[in-house]
Amino acid sequence: IQETHLPNSLSLLSVDSQTLQKQIDELSTFSDSPAPSVTRILYSDMDVLARRYVKNLMGLAGLSVREDAVGNIFGRWEGYEPEIGAVATGSHIDAIPYSGKYDGVVGVLGAIEAINVLKRSGFKPKKSLEVIMFTSEEPTRFGISCLGSRLLAGSEELAKALRNTVDNQNTSFFDAASFAGYEKDEEKLSSVFLDKGIYSAFIELHIEQGPILEKEGISIGVVTAIAAPASIKVDFEGNGGHAGAVLMPDRNDAGLAAAELALAVEKHVLESGSVDTVGTIGIMDLHPRAINSIPSKAHLEIDTRDIEESRRNIVIEKIHQSAMAISKKRGVKLSEFQIVNQDPPALSDSSVIKAMELAASELNLTYKKMISRAYHDSLFMARISPMGMIFIPCYKGYSHKPEEFASLDDMANGVKVLASTLAKLSLH
Amino acid sequence: IQETHLPNSLSLLSVDSQTLQKQIDELSTFSDSPAPSVTRILYSDMDVLARRYVKNLMGLAGLSVREDAVGNIFGRWEGYEPEIGAVATGSHIDAIPYSGKYDGVVGVLGAIEAINVLKRSGFKPKKSLEVIMFTSEEPTRFGISCLGSRLLAGSEELAKALRNTVDNQNTSFFDAASFAGYEKDEEKLSSVFLDKGIYSAFIELHIEQGPILEKEGISIGVVTAIAAPASIKVDFEGNGGHAGAVLMPDRNDAGLAAAELALAVEKHVLESGSVDTVGTIGIMDLHPRAINSIPSKAHLEIDTRDIEESRRNIVIEKIHQSAMAISKKRGVKLSEFQIVNQDPPALSDSSVIKAMELAASELNLTYKKMISRAYHDSLFMARISPMGMIFIPCYKGYSHKPEEFASLDDMANGVKVLASTLAKLSLH
Ligand SMILES: [Mn+2]
Ligand SMILES: [Mn+2]
Ligand SMILES: [Mn+2]
Ligand SMILES: [Mn+2]
Repeated sequence: IQETHLPNSLSLLSVDSQTLQKQIDELSTFSDSPAPSVTRILYSDMDVLARRYVKNLMGLAGLSVREDAVGNIFGRWEGYEPEIGAVATGSHIDAIPYSGKYDGVVGVLGAIEAINVLKRSGFKPKKSLEVIMFTSEEPTRFGISCLGSRLLAGSEELAKALRNTVDNQNTSFFDAASFAGYEKDEEKLSSVFLDKGIYSAFIELHIEQGPILEKEGISIGVVTAIAAPASIKVDFEGNGGHAGAVLMPDRNDAGLAAAELALAVEKHVLESGSVDTVGTIGIMDLHPRAINSIPSKAHLEIDTRDIEESRRNIVIEKIHQSAMAISKKRGVKLSEFQIVNQDPPALSDSSVIKAMELAASELNLTYKKMISRAYHDSLFMARISPMGMIFIPCYKGYSHKPEEFASLDDMANGVKVLASTLAKLSLH
Repeated sequence: IQETHLPNSLSLLSVDSQTLQKQIDELSTFSDSPAPSVTRILYSDMDVLARRYVKNLMGLAGLSVREDAVGNIFGRWEGYEPEIGAVATGSHIDAIPYSGKYDGVVGVLGAIEAINVLKRSGFKPKKSLEVIMFTSEEPTRFGISCLGSRLLAGSEELAKALRNTVDNQNTSFFDAASFAGYEKDEEKLSSVFLDKGIYSAFIELHIEQGPILEKEGISIGVVTAIAAPASIKVDFEGNGGHAGAVLMPDRNDAGLAAAELALAVEKHVLESGSVDTVGTIGIMDLHPRAINSIPSKAHLEIDTRDIEESRRNIVIEKIHQSAMAISKKRGVKLSEFQIVNQDPPALSDSSVIKAMELAASELNLTYKKMISRAYHDSLFMARISPMGMIFIPCYKGYSHKPEEFASLDDMANGVKVLASTLAKLSLH
């Protein structure tokens, strides 16, 4: 790292955290649920408005803006050696129902502020710098997490799957994309793929979404690895019927099968014996969803993660065994058991880790190397670029709920470390 | 029973079952879900259209139509001794999501056809005859079953509760009613109450919603009692959080608490030892309902019934104990445990039973005395009038699903028995 090439003024990096907070607050108003909660679903009206807001900020920061066929948004600051792979940073702005305003957003608006910081300091990039806003990191609408970054990283599998992907209103992915002004031609999805090497590094700034940094009073988390996430969709089907008229021995209740599987997931996760294994049933839909009807269908979505891929895969196998056993015992059909994704963990690149550590040290900020248990677009960017992540503390580790919060100081620290890391890697 | 006063032509009662089927099919098109399923929710656009359809048929049958403040609809055929309490019949036309087209509808359109049958036969009523279409037998929209008949029967408790009742879109009962053209003034609800004695009898024709008549090849069920239904709403609240970041020991998952309670309901019901005890969890909603969020809230709606009230109440008490124990064990708040209704069973009146039995015998139809395990508006009409119910077979006992079906012959038999019973009780 040729840190000696950095202009002196970089040690005086000044973040306009008031403006950043104002922007975060403004962006949070593009929501389908009342404040303080945020709900921003891919390709919805609110998503389109929020995207316009981000593109406008990129423009104001002097970045040249481009969007790809699925709405990944790129803001580029051309370096004086533009033929070398750019140094990129970014995150997402979509928000699951009734969540908060910092998840992802800090890594998009904070990245734009990092660019502003560098510009104010007089910095001139050698490698180009690029801010990326990824499409649909959250799986809310189509059940696919990191949709944009997965495609950027060249997932042919995803490009194929999207041809038959619909949301729970039966709207196809391409109809939804075209509603938001993006591609409706499925043949053109491969234009989203980026070549390996197009970026010389990728760094994502993000709230920790866990309690460690706050608890230990540490300013910066230097992420060394991202845990391996998997998600599973399960459908049970029974005969349903009237809640008064069908006697208990004649029932095959899809809802009770789902309840039993939910508890089995918890059991299998705890059996792993490691605190790093987690499993969650966030979705359990009963049909027809009436108090006086026996559920004839139940739909579950299960999320399980571990920092060890093999241990996570054992849990998935046990969940499958339980689903089959419950189906048999209750006379309920297991009409679907689909492993939607089963991604390996990703490691941060040692050169990026070093740059982040050096940036934090120079800024006199305490930092700690840590693992990300939540996944991020970085998980997929790691497939095509050296990757690193910067975590900042958040209130009680809360995320995915309205109480999510990061302080002005913590955000300013994160933006400074990001700006400095971008500068170092740009000049490197 | 002065059956000798019946005109001879009554033995030739001819039901126009083709037209009845056509009307049932037409009414089923007023639905918010695609055929063959029916979804017709209180005070929705489709409900308003269906109500207009029923009022029109009542008018064509020569009945004088009146509606009360909540939309119970009455079609009256004045008898030659109109000062004596009328003989009433009727049922409901609302349909839970994705259900069928016969539940309730057979007892409304079939009742209008019974009037047509009697008119064609030359019958002249002594006591007036009245067809009633009850508002919201199903609890779908406001969580209150038999809303119309409960109010007719004078439930001050319900009139009071409706002031604070909202649907899951937070629309108040009175706003919804006024949307459909009914009362928006909460003070006027007591105008719906009917005095005891205003009817000298009430009879409801309904599909069995169970498999017995079909299995045993019997044409008519003469209902002697209606089981005691109860319904319970339960809410659990935990801290929620990110599915990746919050480790298992730090969780208090409201969804798992709900799953555990669902299985406890089944256990307590089975412990009763009687096949007549049933319990169902038809609704289990998780919040925020995202695959990567730990449920911070769970809402359950539980239905439990028995032909013995005390045995059912023991089950309710055990469910409450379990809910509290689960709450404690999982560190999840039991923020609501509300017994929404806990109705006693109702007995049919012996004079009405005798009239139904005699009618079936005279028509040479096989019949069987039986218990209704589903509840009906008759449960509440029994509070202000001698009550009886006529069941007809339905395919495999299916109800509350699109496969619900009753044959033309079975419906014609039910309408004949109803017409004859109305005639007998009118002249009595
Ligand atoms: Mn998130
Ligand atoms: Mn995120
Ligand atoms: Mn029903
Ligand atoms: Mn019914």
